[in-house]
Amino acid sequence: MKNIFASIITIGDELLIGQVIDTNSAWLAQELNKMGIKIKHRIAVGDIWEDIWNALDEESKNADIILITGGLGPTSDDITKPLLCQYFNGKMIVHQPTLAFITDLFEKVLNRPMIERNKKQAEVPDTCTVLPNEKGTAPGMLFEKNGKLFISMPGVPHEMKWIFSHQASSIITQKYNSGYIEHRTLLTAGIGESFLAEKLIPFEQQIPSHIKLAYLPNFGMVRLRLSAFSIHKEKIAEEIIYQFNLLKQYVNDFLVIDDDLPLEAVVGKLLLKQQKTIATAESCTGGYIAHLITSIPGSSNYFKGSIVSYDNSIKNNLLNVSNETLNNNGAVSKETVTQMANNIAKIMQTDYAIAVSGIMGPAGGTEEKPVGTVWIAVTNNVTTITKQFNFRFDRIRNMQLTAINALNLVRQLIVDNS
Amino acid sequence: MKNIFASIITIGDELLIGQVIDTNSAWLAQELNKMGIKIKHRIAVGDIWEDIWNALDEESKNADIILITGGLGPTSDDITKPLLCQYFNGKMIVHQPTLAFITDLFEKVLNRPMIERNKKQAEVPDTCTVLPNEKGTAPGMLFEKNGKLFISMPGVPHEMKWIFSHQASSIITQKYNSGYIEHRTLLTAGIGESFLAEKLIPFEQQIPSHIKLAYLPNFGMVRLRLSAFSIHKEKIAEEIIYQFNLLKQYVNDFLVIDDDLPLEAVVGKLLLKQQKTIATAESCTGGYIAHLITSIPGSSNYFKGSIVSYDNSIKNNLLNVSNETLNNNGAVSKETVTQMANNIAKIMQTDYAIAVSGIMGPAGGTEEKPVGTVWIAVTNNVTTITKQFNFRFDRIRNMQLTAINALNLVRQLIVDNS
Repeated sequence: MKNIFASIITIGDELLIGQVIDTNSAWLAQELNKMGIKIKHRIAVGDIWEDIWNALDEESKNADIILITGGLGPTSDDITKPLLCQYFNGKMIVHQPTLAFITDLFEKVLNRPMIERNKKQAEVPDTCTVLPNEKGTAPGMLFEKNGKLFISMPGVPHEMKWIFSHQASSIITQKYNSGYIEHRTLLTAGIGESFLAEKLIPFEQQIPSHIKLAYLPNFGMVRLRLSAFSIHKEKIAEEIIYQFNLLKQYVNDFLVIDDDLPLEAVVGKLLLKQQKTIATAESCTGGYIAHLITSIPGSSNYFKGSIVSYDNSIKNNLLNVSNETLNNNGAVSKETVTQMANNIAKIMQTDYAIAVSGIMGPAGGTEEKPVGTVWIAVTNNVTTITKQFNFRFDRIRNMQLTAINALNLVRQLIVDNS
Repeated sequence: MKNIFASIITIGDELLIGQVIDTNSAWLAQELNKMGIKIKHRIAVGDIWEDIWNALDEESKNADIILITGGLGPTSDDITKPLLCQYFNGKMIVHQPTLAFITDLFEKVLNRPMIERNKKQAEVPDTCTVLPNEKGTAPGMLFEKNGKLFISMPGVPHEMKWIFSHQASSIITQKYNSGYIEHRTLLTAGIGESFLAEKLIPFEQQIPSHIKLAYLPNFGMVRLRLSAFSIHKEKIAEEIIYQFNLLKQYVNDFLVIDDDLPLEAVVGKLLLKQQKTIATAESCTGGYIAHLITSIPGSSNYFKGSIVSYDNSIKNNLLNVSNETLNNNGAVSKETVTQMANNIAKIMQTDYAIAVSGIMGPAGGTEEKPVGTVWIAVTNNVTTITKQFNFRFDRIRNMQLTAINALNLVRQLIVDNS
């Protein structure tokens, strides 16, 4: 089987000085991967003529497909288009359909006058095939040279995604029949990466060489991914199912879900199946758990709402945590989160509830309750489970760990209930 | 002035298949940038011997400093350490202080027995200088070859950050006196990138060549960044202040803040200064606005809390939106968000409040109120301002745009009040 390789070049000073986190290339990598195309490199270069030119030279040595994002804006720091024009020996011409689209966009949607600079967006090298962009003013461009595909797209994520999904992906599929790739991913909790690896020695010894096992630890949980490559679609489909079932047996005691889903989607799936509802009462996470739950489409079927009680007065007035408890045990205590969980379930009339209270830092820690101290409670209106955690990280990571652990505790409670 | 260049190599299949978004290299780029070091490339490669080797060869041609993250885990897919050992002609030895640290970590913190695989983490090539890692089991490693620095760090973000901040950065500073770099960033709202560029033609014409202007559009707002490079610290400090003040005059009508802060921090700063408080009532954003506000350290000084009313019953029971309004105007309406904003301010006794209700998609749209329809209300208990938006994106981006616009509306209200 011939491997088809792609490289992703992202262009822009903002990537190199770290002002923007590159989410485009992760998304592109996922899409290419689904198509059975391997990624050789992901490379970020600045808005510098020579560096972009060299990256094109260099990546086209190793890859069959070169995807380029960014540098297509209307301002003077964006030099990708003139560079591509020269690189592929073209001259700039106005692409009439694009000009018509931009004119229409300004007249009918943006309700702003169009200026010369916007019209420039409709200019493209005459050596490219235009990939229309329905989501913005910079069109995508396809070039071919020495049998390799070069696809340039804007850096704005939703524009890039639209062009790739609606135009570029089918062009790539037509040109390359790149074999098949299958992934299966499962999520474990409660076991470290090293211990898992120890447990999986016999499993790893028997995997065929065209199947690969990867360990992806994050937030104290480890995701395991099996990837199989072959030109025989049926063969790998069968093999990966066999291997994945075997893997599940090895990690059975620690298995959270045998799917590549975030924990908030796992909880949502369980609730949907049981036709149950949930609410959250959040102090230290400030709405982050509710945000994770509602980031899943369809969550309105099981999520009723949240009271974010950042101030203690809200814990008392709205969540009915007694002043006695707040005064005697403090806001970060087993007693407080127990009342928060039980009361939010009653207030919002839900089957399950999550409550968290903690000290996220950098300030607010005491000797008795240092930064990172967190109490979590989950309830099903009959049983309330509480657990204390001591995280040792920065504010944002402490929030993330609190949320993940709270979701995992409620997941266990829902599973135990079913 | 001699430019010092660094390249960042991130290692791991999970980066190439897009399962993990690379935040490490953005963070490293920011840190290096502050030190006056330019980034030549950021490159991601898989756990493949030849690719890592070639990346080391290639990047050391162009850069003075090569930073390497990832591939140092205890499992078999992590091959960076043996590769570095061979690349720098070393042999593996046990680093006793690291072994002692790991042993201690397992005994006292993790309370788990240590296995052979964990001990392996203490092995390092004898040609490296160990950079101890207080946050995990994989130490950092420093190599020097042909006058270039190679620094290998684990891929776990908080471990990498700790090693870089506490060990690597001072090593780099000692070796390279790389001149000075100064950035000034401001945030604009209400003007597109092309129009800004048009307005700034005369400004751009007069900037000296060692100062660069960059346009960074995001969520319908444009950040402008000036960067100045020089070996003369005083000279660029003076120049950039002059140029930045000039830039501010050009964009004065659209200026949100003359600082590189996210909008939620700008709102927080204004509230702190006025000693005022805020609360949110969120439907479609599901707690995301509260999450953004509380992601800022010290937000407990001005943020009291939130009611996330995902279910309509919560809008009625807890936020006291009248059933008449909900039935006649719907949950996504001017009338509903007005009541939500006014009532949450009363319930939480705050000076300001934000309320949002909308349809984020993919489901839930109607002909009259398609996906992306959002109503936002902000109040100061005297004036309540409402605004309708129609976003055209996916669920997550619609949520982000709702949050950003809500924060900007309340910012304007706070500014107008002061």
